[in-house]
Amino acid sequence: MSTLVLLRHGHSEWNALNLFTGWVDVDLNEQGVQEALRAPQLLNDAGIAPDVSHTSLLRRAIRTAEITLNGIDRHWIPVKRSWRLNERHYGALQGKDKKATLEEFGEEQFMTWRRSYSTPPPALDDDSEFSQAGDPRYADLPSELLPRTECLADVLVRMLPYWYDQIVPDLRDDKTVLVTAHGNSLRALVKHLDGLGEDEVVGLNIPTGIPLVYELDDDLKPTQRGGQYLDPEAAAAAIAAVANQGR
Amino acid sequence: MSTLVLLRHGHSEWNALNLFTGWVDVDLNEQGVQEALRAPQLLNDAGIAPDVSHTSLLRRAIRTAEITLNGIDRHWIPVKRSWRLNERHYGALQGKDKKATLEEFGEEQFMTWRRSYSTPPPALDDDSEFSQAGDPRYADLPSELLPRTECLADVLVRMLPYWYDQIVPDLRDDKTVLVTAHGNSLRALVKHLDGLGEDEVVGLNIPTGIPLVYELDDDLKPTQRGGQYLDPEAAAAAIAAVANQGR
Repeated sequence: MSTLVLLRHGHSEWNALNLFTGWVDVDLNEQGVQEALRAPQLLNDAGIAPDVSHTSLLRRAIRTAEITLNGIDRHWIPVKRSWRLNERHYGALQGKDKKATLEEFGEEQFMTWRRSYSTPPPALDDDSEFSQAGDPRYADLPSELLPRTECLADVLVRMLPYWYDQIVPDLRDDKTVLVTAHGNSLRALVKHLDGLGEDEVVGLNIPTGIPLVYELDDDLKPTQRGGQYLDPEAAAAAIAAVANQGR
Repeated sequence: MSTLVLLRHGHSEWNALNLFTGWVDVDLNEQGVQEALRAPQLLNDAGIAPDVSHTSLLRRAIRTAEITLNGIDRHWIPVKRSWRLNERHYGALQGKDKKATLEEFGEEQFMTWRRSYSTPPPALDDDSEFSQAGDPRYADLPSELLPRTECLADVLVRMLPYWYDQIVPDLRDDKTVLVTAHGNSLRALVKHLDGLGEDEVVGLNIPTGIPLVYELDDDLKPTQRGGQYLDPEAAAAAIAAVANQGR
């Protein structure tokens, strides 16, 4: 039996501006820092001490993990990071205002890009100011591997190798594993863990700053489908709020 | 040719209290945070971008590395940590007031413990509140490996395996390597790099918050003995100040 803790970072500077973010590396804002500071309290109360930390390559997840681990005196545990845990690449929507995009393209197209499982937004040009084509952190990726846009199905495909090759070995090693990442990379992981159908994951929202704990059996299947939020009431309230985000 | 950047963390809460710290895991104080914030400026000005970060297991070094890397947009690089980069274990002096210790034991004994190469302070009891014997971050170390006190010679012996096994491979891989650590673990490393004698290293002070850059040849020897501080004037002034610390 092993323990997996999923943690979604909180508000960033671009949440406050209502812009599509994706792979753009914006920082947490003050609200996001406050959300990150709740996680160590909840982990402490639950007596959960991660042995290893996995994050994306994006600052908002990295800082959330740092704040969380510092707060539970586990700042010293090993850290692994990968682009495979990054947020969904939002394609040509990155840097765009959500409300303006809704008005320009209409609600049906807007909701398809935001929520459909297999329809990505238009690709982002490499010469866009919001492109990651020249970003040194992805310099070692062959060009065909670097996303220019993604739907949730794409996120699942590029996330799963990291799950199998990097996270699973830690779990097999009986470690308590913390994965600090993003709305869509975590939705993809939860789809895999809980065996959700495509229509089920479309309706799945993961609240920010509340650790979601999975106990996994020897076959790495959850002993409880959906796991357990460390603050179930706050999670339920936040899920309702996220569902209305950007509207 | 490869580039090694050494960075000593700045003031901690116990510097302000004038206590011997060693392996006690105190945080940076506000002055220490400000010192850490200077490093990214200096690295940016010098055009130095680390590819990999090595730290001790102590919060004051970990946070200094985090602040530095965040400030130069390199928060996403791989991080490795080890107890082998920890500060010198100060033995029974950990948690003691420096001035009171000077008065109790006299200047000769005091300076021997602080500065001699091969005389450690008395060992710290495992049941002391300042002991690391029950600390989970060292739980995997066999008891005989966990220091109860150290002189600088001891630090060199336990640091060198990490240098050879973890840092050297990164340098061989043509990476620019950042090592964020402590006064004495860095003095031990500089002794090794510059081939200092025991009497020379006794007089060596490494200022806080100022990156010290070594260019290393194919035999991992410094092309310039002593390396180069990114702010040489501030380094010279700080070296003079450190020499008078605790007096």
